[in-house]
Amino acid sequence: MEFLTHYSCTLCGSEYTPPVDFYTCPKCGEKGILDIHYDYERLKKTLNKQYFADNTDYSMWRYEPLMSVSKAHIDKTLRVGWTPHYKSNQLAKRLKMDALYIKDEGLNPTGSLKDRASAVAVLKAMENDNVTIACSSTGNAASSLAGNAARMGLKTVIFVPERAPIGKLAQLLAYGADVISVEGDYKAAFQLSKAAIDHFGWYNRNAAINPHMVEGKKTVAYEIAEQLDFDVPDWVVVSVGDGCTIAGVYKGFYDLFAIGITDRIPKILGVQSEGCAPFYEAAKEGRELIETDENTIADSIAVGIPRNPTKALNAVKRSGGQWITVTDEQILESIVLLGKEEGVFAEPAAAASMAGLLEALEQNVVSRRERVSVIVTGNGLKDTKSMEHYGIKPKRLKPDLDLLIEYMQNNEGGRT
Amino acid sequence: MEFLTHYSCTLCGSEYTPPVDFYTCPKCGEKGILDIHYDYERLKKTLNKQYFADNTDYSMWRYEPLMSVSKAHIDKTLRVGWTPHYKSNQLAKRLKMDALYIKDEGLNPTGSLKDRASAVAVLKAMENDNVTIACSSTGNAASSLAGNAARMGLKTVIFVPERAPIGKLAQLLAYGADVISVEGDYKAAFQLSKAAIDHFGWYNRNAAINPHMVEGKKTVAYEIAEQLDFDVPDWVVVSVGDGCTIAGVYKGFYDLFAIGITDRIPKILGVQSEGCAPFYEAAKEGRELIETDENTIADSIAVGIPRNPTKALNAVKRSGGQWITVTDEQILESIVLLGKEEGVFAEPAAAASMAGLLEALEQNVVSRRERVSVIVTGNGLKDTKSMEHYGIKPKRLKPDLDLLIEYMQNNEGGRT
Repeated sequence: MEFLTHYSCTLCGSEYTPPVDFYTCPKCGEKGILDIHYDYERLKKTLNKQYFADNTDYSMWRYEPLMSVSKAHIDKTLRVGWTPHYKSNQLAKRLKMDALYIKDEGLNPTGSLKDRASAVAVLKAMENDNVTIACSSTGNAASSLAGNAARMGLKTVIFVPERAPIGKLAQLLAYGADVISVEGDYKAAFQLSKAAIDHFGWYNRNAAINPHMVEGKKTVAYEIAEQLDFDVPDWVVVSVGDGCTIAGVYKGFYDLFAIGITDRIPKILGVQSEGCAPFYEAAKEGRELIETDENTIADSIAVGIPRNPTKALNAVKRSGGQWITVTDEQILESIVLLGKEEGVFAEPAAAASMAGLLEALEQNVVSRRERVSVIVTGNGLKDTKSMEHYGIKPKRLKPDLDLLIEYMQNNEGGRT
Repeated sequence: MEFLTHYSCTLCGSEYTPPVDFYTCPKCGEKGILDIHYDYERLKKTLNKQYFADNTDYSMWRYEPLMSVSKAHIDKTLRVGWTPHYKSNQLAKRLKMDALYIKDEGLNPTGSLKDRASAVAVLKAMENDNVTIACSSTGNAASSLAGNAARMGLKTVIFVPERAPIGKLAQLLAYGADVISVEGDYKAAFQLSKAAIDHFGWYNRNAAINPHMVEGKKTVAYEIAEQLDFDVPDWVVVSVGDGCTIAGVYKGFYDLFAIGITDRIPKILGVQSEGCAPFYEAAKEGRELIETDENTIADSIAVGIPRNPTKALNAVKRSGGQWITVTDEQILESIVLLGKEEGVFAEPAAAASMAGLLEALEQNVVSRRERVSVIVTGNGLKDTKSMEHYGIKPKRLKPDLDLLIEYMQNNEGGRT
C-alpha cells in the first residue's frame, strides 16, 4: 500500500490522509462511503507490462502495489484470485459473437468473487490488531470471510436472519464461524451486527461501509485485463446486488487506464434480477434508489436496499455502460447454457450476468462484433437447489440395453 | 505423449506398443489393467528443474511430456490442476508437527481431483474421434467428466443407481449430461453402462479400466513435488476408494524419481473408512481383496469392490507406506479441523485423509518430525448434508445486544 495517498468522501468530497481509524466519512456518517486514491504518477514508473510479465505470484496479491493492504502476511493467506478467464469454445459460435470470455470466479477458495474482499478484510483486521471480524450476511460474503479468516487464525462472528436455511450455513459452520441466527429478518440481523461491532470493536467487513472491500474486488478487473494482454474487452458484464462488486470492476479498469497500461475503460453492463432491480429502476428514471422487494432465486443479488449506491451507479455511467434486467427463468436457462456449452457451473446470481448478455444482444445494447467478458461471480455448488427447481431430471430406466437403445435413438443420442 | 514407449499388463506382463485400441490386456481380459511406460532416459535430457522454472502453463498440462495425451486441444480445456499446496498455518502447531502441507484439490474446475482424469479422458476421446463419453458413477468422476466434456463440446452419458439423490445430480444436469437412472443398485448401473459402451462404441471413462485415468491423476504428485521445489515430503496422505487416485499419486512420484528430478518416493499413507476398507483388510491379512459393505458417510470412497486393486496395493507397498482406517466420526471432526484451522472446506472423503494422518500420528506410524502432505480430494460444497448431520448449529438469539454480550462472554468470544 505504499502508493496509497488519501481517502475521499464520495458524498462531500472531503479528503483524509492515512492512517484513518473510521470506515465512512466522519462528516457525512454512514452514507459517506470513502474512495481510496493512489499516486498514479509514481505507479506509472513501476507498473508496466514487463512488471507483470516478471511477476510469478499468480494470485490477487500480484497487484499489491495497487492495493490498500500491507504486504505482511500475504504469503499465508488462502490463494485468492488468478481465476481462469476462458475464451468461449461453443457459446460464442452459438451466439454468433466474435469474442466472448468467461471469468470463472467460482474457483476462488470459498467459491466466489467475495474472497477478493474478504482476503483484504482479514489483512486489514490484522493490521489493526483485531482478532475478530464480523459481518451480517447469509451468503458468499459470510462464507468467504469465515474461510479467509480461519486460514489466518482469526475469529468470525456472522449474523444471519432466522430464515437462513441450514444448507447455506454448512460452509460457515465448517469454517468454525460463530453464527448468530437473529430472530427476525435481514434488517434485524444487520442492526444487531452493527450494535455488536460498535460494542466489541470487532473489525467490520460489511462491504457497503468498508472502502477496502472494493479495493479487493477490483483485482478481478486487473486480471481480465492482464489475461487479455491488457487489450481490454469492449464490455464487461457483471450481476449487481449491493453494488460493491460492480464498483470494484470499474475501479480496477480505471486504475489501469490511469497508470497508462490500458487505453480505455470497458463499458460495464450491470445486470439485475427483474424481481429486485433498484439500480436499474433508479438509473432508468434518473432518480435516487428506492427500497424494492427481493423476489428472485438469485439470492446473492437479492438486495432491496443497496447501502452503497453511488459507486455502482457511477461505474455504469462513467464507463458508458448500461443497466439491464433478467427474469429468474432467463437466469436458470443461463446456468444450463454455461454448464452445457462451456463446462462452467454458476450459481443463479452468477449466471445472471450471462442472462444479461443474452438480453443485451437481443436489445442491440451489445453488438455481436464487440469483445465481451462475462464475470461468473459464484460457484454453482453453492446452490444446487435451484437446478432441482428448474425441473431437469435424469431418465429413469430398467437395466435393459434395448430400452436404452430405444431411448438414445429418440433422444438424438447414441453417437459414438 | 511423444515420450510414451509402451503399455504393459499389470497381471501377465505382456507389452504392447502404441497405438492400442483396447483398454485392458487382451490376454487377461478386464482384470488385465494396463500400465503406461515412458522413455525416462530421453526425458532426463529435457525435463529438469529449469524446464519447469521456465514453464508458464500453470495447469496440469505443464507436465504434458510425461503424459499419454496429445497436445492438440490442450489450450481449450478447463483449467485443471496447479491447485494450492498450502503450508499449514495453525494445524501444524496444534499437532506439534514440523511441517504439514495441504493440497486443496477442491479448487479444480468441477470441485475434485477427478478433473485430472476427466480432462485426459476428454482429450483421449477426441484423439479417437469419439463425441460421446460414458461412465457409471454418482459422484465426482461423473460430474468432472460432464464438466470437462461440456467444455470441449462432447456429449456424456452417465449411469447412476436409482437411489442417487437429486442434489448429487444437479451439477451433472447443469453440465448437460445425459443422466440415466438405472433401476437397481450400483452394480446394475455399472453393468448397463458396460453393455451400452460396448454397443455404441462410446469412449469409456471408467477409471478402473482405462489406464489413461491414472496418468491424469498422477499430475497431483508432480505438483506437490514442484510446489516444494522438488524436495518431496516424507509422507503423502490420500483417501482411497477404487484405488485409482492412490495409484496415480505413486506413479507421479515414481516418474519424477525415475527421471532424476527427485531423490526418492514419499511413503504413501492410504486412508480408508472403517465401514468400507477392502484394501486395508487385504493388506493387513496379506490376501486378495474381498467385497465389503459400503457403510460410510464418505461416499466418494465407499467402494466395496475396487476394480483396480493391484496398482493401489503396489503404491503403498513399494513406497514403504501404510494402510490405515478412520471412523465417520473422525472424518466429520476432520472436516471442521481443516475448515476452522486452515480455511479449507473438504467433503467427507477428502477430510478422511486428514483423519488418517491424525490416526497415524496417534499410532506412531507417522512421526511429528516428518514432513507430510495431505491431499484434500474434493470440495466440501459437494456435500453440505454431512455437516448438517454432524449437528453443529447456529446460536439462535433475539435481536438484543445484551443477550449477545452474555452469549459471547460464555463462549470465550467477544475478543476484539
